[in-house]
This record gives sequence, structure tokens and C-alpha cells, in this order.
Amino acid sequence: MQDLLRNIDNSVGECIEQLAEFVRIPSISAGANVDSSQAIQEAANFLVSQFTRMNFAVQKAQIGANTNPLVIARSPGFSSARPTVMIYGHYDVQGVDNPRAAWTVDPFAAEQRDGYMIARGASDNKGPTFAHIKAVETMLQVGRPLPVDLLFVIEGEEECGSQALETFVQNGGLDEYAPFLCTVISDTSMYGPDRPSLTLGLRGISYFEISVRGPKQDVHSGLFGGIVHNPNAVLVQALAGLYNADGQIAVPGFYNGIEPLSAREKRHYEALHAPEQDYMQELGVPALRREVGYSLLEQRWTRPTLEINYLSGGSPRTVIPSMAHAAISARLVPGQNPACIESLLQECISARIPQGARVEFSRPHSSPAYHLDIDHPLVAPTLSAIKQGFNCEALVTREGGSIPIVVDIAARTAAPVLLVGLGQITDNWHGPNERFALRNFHRGMRTSAALLHELGAVS
Amino acid sequence: MQDLLRNIDNSVGECIEQLAEFVRIPSISAGANVDSSQAIQEAANFLVSQFTRMNFAVQKAQIGANTNPLVIARSPGFSSARPTVMIYGHYDVQGVDNPRAAWTVDPFAAEQRDGYMIARGASDNKGPTFAHIKAVETMLQVGRPLPVDLLFVIEGEEECGSQALETFVQNGGLDEYAPFLCTVISDTSMYGPDRPSLTLGLRGISYFEISVRGPKQDVHSGLFGGIVHNPNAVLVQALAGLYNADGQIAVPGFYNGIEPLSAREKRHYEALHAPEQDYMQELGVPALRREVGYSLLEQRWTRPTLEINYLSGGSPRTVIPSMAHAAISARLVPGQNPACIESLLQECISARIPQGARVEFSRPHSSPAYHLDIDHPLVAPTLSAIKQGFNCEALVTREGGSIPIVVDIAARTAAPVLLVGLGQITDNWHGPNERFALRNFHRGMRTSAALLHELGAVS
Repeated sequence: MQDLLRNIDNSVGECIEQLAEFVRIPSISAGANVDSSQAIQEAANFLVSQFTRMNFAVQKAQIGANTNPLVIARSPGFSSARPTVMIYGHYDVQGVDNPRAAWTVDPFAAEQRDGYMIARGASDNKGPTFAHIKAVETMLQVGRPLPVDLLFVIEGEEECGSQALETFVQNGGLDEYAPFLCTVISDTSMYGPDRPSLTLGLRGISYFEISVRGPKQDVHSGLFGGIVHNPNAVLVQALAGLYNADGQIAVPGFYNGIEPLSAREKRHYEALHAPEQDYMQELGVPALRREVGYSLLEQRWTRPTLEINYLSGGSPRTVIPSMAHAAISARLVPGQNPACIESLLQECISARIPQGARVEFSRPHSSPAYHLDIDHPLVAPTLSAIKQGFNCEALVTREGGSIPIVVDIAARTAAPVLLVGLGQITDNWHGPNERFALRNFHRGMRTSAALLHELGAVS
Repeated sequence: MQDLLRNIDNSVGECIEQLAEFVRIPSISAGANVDSSQAIQEAANFLVSQFTRMNFAVQKAQIGANTNPLVIARSPGFSSARPTVMIYGHYDVQGVDNPRAAWTVDPFAAEQRDGYMIARGASDNKGPTFAHIKAVETMLQVGRPLPVDLLFVIEGEEECGSQALETFVQNGGLDEYAPFLCTVISDTSMYGPDRPSLTLGLRGISYFEISVRGPKQDVHSGLFGGIVHNPNAVLVQALAGLYNADGQIAVPGFYNGIEPLSAREKRHYEALHAPEQDYMQELGVPALRREVGYSLLEQRWTRPTLEINYLSGGSPRTVIPSMAHAAISARLVPGQNPACIESLLQECISARIPQGARVEFSRPHSSPAYHLDIDHPLVAPTLSAIKQGFNCEALVTREGGSIPIVVDIAARTAAPVLLVGLGQITDNWHGPNERFALRNFHRGMRTSAALLHELGAVS
């Protein structure tokens, strides 16, 4: 293993040059003002050529019309007799108009400065994905047999809904590669600089929109005020019923069935340093909120939420509006069923809509939480690999956000997803001057090699 | 009197020609895409020349900079020994882009069709104002002494806030014409076609806006959901407290001091035909709302309201917004003090803002309700004059809207305002194809002459 890591240390410079090539392809799938379809193909082709020279069986899979291709690559000598390790990533990137003027460099020049590559997609997610590819290539170059059978699935629509991949997974596209040992994904964040982590959980989500309909057009509040239901008022009263007087979620049944945080996982999170003051400063607020009995990180990572993301109705003058709109979303934790939560929320809202007012729900989407038990047999080998890769202690964490495809993959492969983030929360994903620490690219390559080694030992 | 009315019947054709001249001046003060300042002066000058040939002492009064002039005209032989009757109107009109394409005629051609003059300002308010001027001119032409001393005050900013008039009234500009018997205003609506009415009351208003501030920018609901106050949720919970579970106003003290509707006035409103079905169809709603114990018209005219006119916050995706906004307005009835209501509302809202959330109130404006007692000695003469003018029974009504300047005038002149509408609610004020029934112009001239006669008899 030490030999292999030394080989990686020696090859990392060359690998960074190749990463720059990959990053220079402006494969934008979201927020683009330009047609990026050629760059999308170019990025997929770049990956195909990478896998081809590694002797992988690689294909650019077109799933349905008007989607970006999946790059699917199987390691040489792949056998269904051995459990497969899947590595997921995405080659598409966010647009750069957010805002463009805030970029201090060309977003697709792959400029290197102070140990970072500053470019769109450097951290989200080309750099981390490429670290895995280059780790495997290095292993092959030094003539090592791969410790596991590998399947790379790299999509081009992560930033715009993962439609092709979702269809592929749900239609059983992964089944031919079964059985699976696990999937490795490096599309989360490290807990902090020099604090690499295995992310044990992601919150799920239940999102939908609400419309309350009133008079057929906005009407004068003097002429009709008092005899017609005001959609804004109906909406406000209905939504207020979601919370109790303390602002806590009051939806009957909302907390039912939530799996308690294990004492062991809880201890890990309580031990992490998370100063309230830092959060208050970052958010620009004079106070935080929290349920009684939960630490800040437990609240962020392991407790469900219910947010009113959007409110809209009428105009700032004396009208009674024709329509009022809201968007609601709950972040879900293990044990909460998204369909059930959606029903509970909509029942709670509907129960407070007066007779004669009309409410409609629309655009629902949902996904359950993902959670890997801290006592799962793959946790220790993963932490060990991270430690070898980074030369420092590996933490366990969760994240508060949702990655629906993780849940789909875990379900369809019947195997855990190991979320090993290589980026940092300060890498400015989706914002201007996105960057990726080259040091973490290097440590990511090392971690990947060590992880495949560890997984080979347990499989 | 019958002679005078016959003279009016004979002169009405000539008067309509002059009204057309007045209406052709595009004196837009609101919603204009063009500079209308020349037309504003032209309309004021038109009125000055009207009053000049009636031997009135007339002035175009410029109140402050950047305001449209008031036309102030005093009848010949005006004496402070006799009580003054003031007649108010406005020569400015709404714009015509609401939308322009919906007009089927040139809005400033004063086209006559099917007994209507179809033009911007024909009904709001040039036609009704001109009916009074022409009635008085006819009286003077037949050599009658005017039965009362008259003061015309015709403003050019009714559609954009009445700034000059408000300043003029509040600075005591009317004081030199005291004592006042009453003010006559024809800027409300008749109850229906062939159902002329004296409007006994207008609701007042208390309006303000609310902002709830959250994190310094919109933040990701996955990353921060659960630890930061959501301004949308804070706003919704605060506003919901304004109502009880039945959707009725629940602000402590809100109903305190409301003057009960007199049995006599109540009987009048109950006797009016106001089918719920018609309202439901006009509004496009499956049901109306109402407080228990109040008829539809009582609810619209004599009960206070509390509306959420505006809601805005976040966007329809998984964010926690930085800010949430609302606009609130209450329509007030006699006995409610606007400043007091504003305090009660803001206290009620503030009491439900959690610690650590931040709320601000802004852009308040308010005006009390206006009410003329049905037993006031000028009511019977006014109804009699309307009956003579229209040759049909005159009703008493109220309106649900607010005209702040009415309250200012009543207070400053210490005299009632007689709201004698000549337009109809179907005249499409502020909309395309505004129209004024020439029949009502004629009947308005007759009513004006009869009213001055009646007022002369009681003064």
C-alpha cells in the first residue's frame, strides 16, 4: 500500500494537468445562457478516452431523448462473481452567471493559484471524480490487480435533475452489475479544512407548492372587503397551523417513527466544534433557533424541518388578490416516509381552508433520507482509508441537504453509499470563483486507492 | 323651480357639447406614459374661462412646487355673512393604458354612442363636476339670484393623491370662505341604474407594510434549515394571529368604540336588493363570507375589514429567504381611530414575532371613516333634490371605499359632505371605455339646481 501511495504522490502533478484539461471543457447543464450541448459531449468523450486507455469497457449511454449521456465504465476482468464497487460522479457543471462579473478569473481557464484550481466544476464535481479515476489508473499503471470490480457511472445532469440517471437506475440499468458491495460518491463536503469525513446521512425532502384561489381578478378592498375570502389571509391562516406558538412544527404525526440518533453517533456530533457565534456571523442573524435538547449539529443534520420557501400574493396597495401562492418543503430524517409526510402536511393545510375558499397542491417532489449506520462494517475501513489518504483523523458527519439519487442508488444496488467528500464548504459551489484545493485532489487520489484496497479486503 | 328645471332641460344639449370640449383635454395625472402637464393647465384654464363668464371670482391656485393647480371659484356677491356651499370635483383623469388596446374608441374623442359619452374622465369626474357648473350657469342665465353662496374647488390631482388640495385644506385655505353649510361632491356612484343615492358613509383606512428580516441572503434550506428563523414562517405566524379560527378579526380592541348602525339606517340597507348570486358571479367565487348577523350590504359598507393585500418572500425552490414582506390594510368604520387601529395591529403582530427575528413597519397611511347621520337636517332636502332631478325615488347608501379628502374637508369646514353620485358602478372608472350616461348628466344638472334651491331654503 505504501508503494502505491508513493506512486500516487509521484504522479499527482501529471494528473493535475489532465484535470485542468477536463475542467476547461465548459460542460454547463444548468443556468446557462449559451448552448452547451457540444461541451457536454466533449466532457463525456474526455471521460470515455480516459477509461479507454485504462482498458475499461466504456460506453456513452444515451437514456431517452434530450438528456445528457451517462458515461458507464466497467473495469477490465469484471466478473459478476465478485461484488462490484460503484463510483459515481458528474461531469456537468453549473453556469457561471451567478453573477459572471464576480468571477476574478476566466471560469474555464483552470487557473491555479495559492494551491487551488479556480474554475467552475473544479470542486463540484470534476476534481473529486477525477481523483478516483486517476487513483485507479495509477493502480493499473503499476501493474496491480484491482482489489475489487469497479463500475464508474458518471452523469451529465446532476445540476439539472439527474433525469437520465434516475431513469437508468429505476429501469434496472445497474442490475447487470450486481451484486454490489457499495457505491462511493465524492460529491459532499469535508467537515472542514484538514478535517476529512465520511458523511453518514443526508436529509430527505418533501416539497410542494400551494395555490389559493380567490376572486377571478384582483379586486378593490374597499368595494369588496368583508364579503370575499382573501387568498392571502386564507393561505396565511392555513400555513400558520403547521407551527405551534413557539414556531415548532405542529403537524400531527410529523415526528412519528423517526429513528432516534444512536448514542454513539450522537457522541461523535457533540464532540465536533461548532460555535454558534460563527453561524450567526455567517448568516448575519442575531440569534439561532433550535429544538430543546439538540445540539446545533444534531439540529442541522438529524432533525426534520418544515420551511415556507416562497410566499406570493397581491400587491402593495389596497387590493384583495385573485391568487396566493406558497412553496413548502420539509427536510426529512430516517424513519420519515416522504409520501406520508406530504399527506400529513396537505391534510393539515386543507383542514384550515374555510368553506368557499379553494386550494390546490402542485409540483410535488420528494425523496427519503439516507443513512448509513455508524456500526456498518464498511464504516471502519472507509475511515481507515480516509486516514491513510489524508494523514489525519477521519470524522463521521451528516449533511442537512438531500441528494435523491443517493437513495435511489442505495435502494437499487441494495448496498450502502459511502459519501467521502473531497471538497470544502468554502469551495463556493454554484457561486463565483469556485475552487478546489489541489492538496485535496492529491489526498483524494490517495484515499481512493486506500479505500479500494480496504474494500477488497472485506469483500 | 319647475321653470328652472325646464330651462335646464332646454340647455342640456348645448351643455353636452361643452362637456365634450372639456373631456377632449387629455388631463391625465396618473398612469401616464406621456407628459400631460400642458393638458393639465389646459383643463384648469378651461374651467377658469367657464367661471369667468359666470362672473365668478376665479383663481388657478398653485400650491407648492410640482403640483397641479387648484381651480377655486367664488360666486358673484359672495358674502361671509351667509353660509357657503362648497362644490368639489376634479379635472384630472386616469391614464388610458389599462390596457390601451381594450379601448374601442379614441379615449379623448368624447364620442357619443347609445346615450353615453365614451371617454376617459367622462364619468370620473369631468361629467359630474360639469353638471354642477352648468346647473349654476343656467340659474345665472335666467337671472335668478343664487340661493346660496357658492365655492367651487376643483383639483387636478385626485387620481394621484390630492397633495395640493390636502396641503391647501390642512393649511386653512378654506377658512376665509367660512362659515360652511356643506360640501357637495359627485365623485361616488349611484346605487344602480335609475337608483340615485345619497352616500351617507365611506369607510376609512389604515394601511402599512411589514418586513421580516432573516439571514443576510437567501440560504440553502438543507444546509441551514432548522437553526435559522425563516422570515416567511415568522411572517405567516405573526399575521395569522390577526384572525381567529373562523377567519374573523381577532385583534384585541379592534372593534372597540364602533358606533352601531342606527335602526333606521339598517332598515334602509336591508330593504335594498343585493342578491348574493350576483356578487358571486361578478367575483367568480363559489361562496361569500360574512359575519353572523349582518346583511351583505351592511358587511360591505358598515363593518371594518382587515386584509392582507400583499405577501412576498423567497422563491419556489428550497431556500430560506432573507426577507419576507406583507402589506396590511384595515377598512375602518365610524368610531374607529386610525392611529389607534394601527397601534393595535402592530402590537398584535409584534407580540407574535419570536426573539431573534426582526420586524419593521413602514409606509403607513390612514384616514378615518366618514359618516353623515341619516337624521341630519340636510339629508331630507338632499333626497328631495335628487328626486326632483331624477324623477325617481332617492336612496341612502354607503360605500366601502375610502376618500380621505372627504374627511379632511368635513373636519376643516365643520360641515357635512353630501356625496351625491351621478356615475354608475358600470361606468368603468380607471378601465377602458369609461363612459357616462348623458341622461345622468342631464339629471345631475337638474339635481344640482334643485339641491342649491333646497339648501338655500334651509340656510
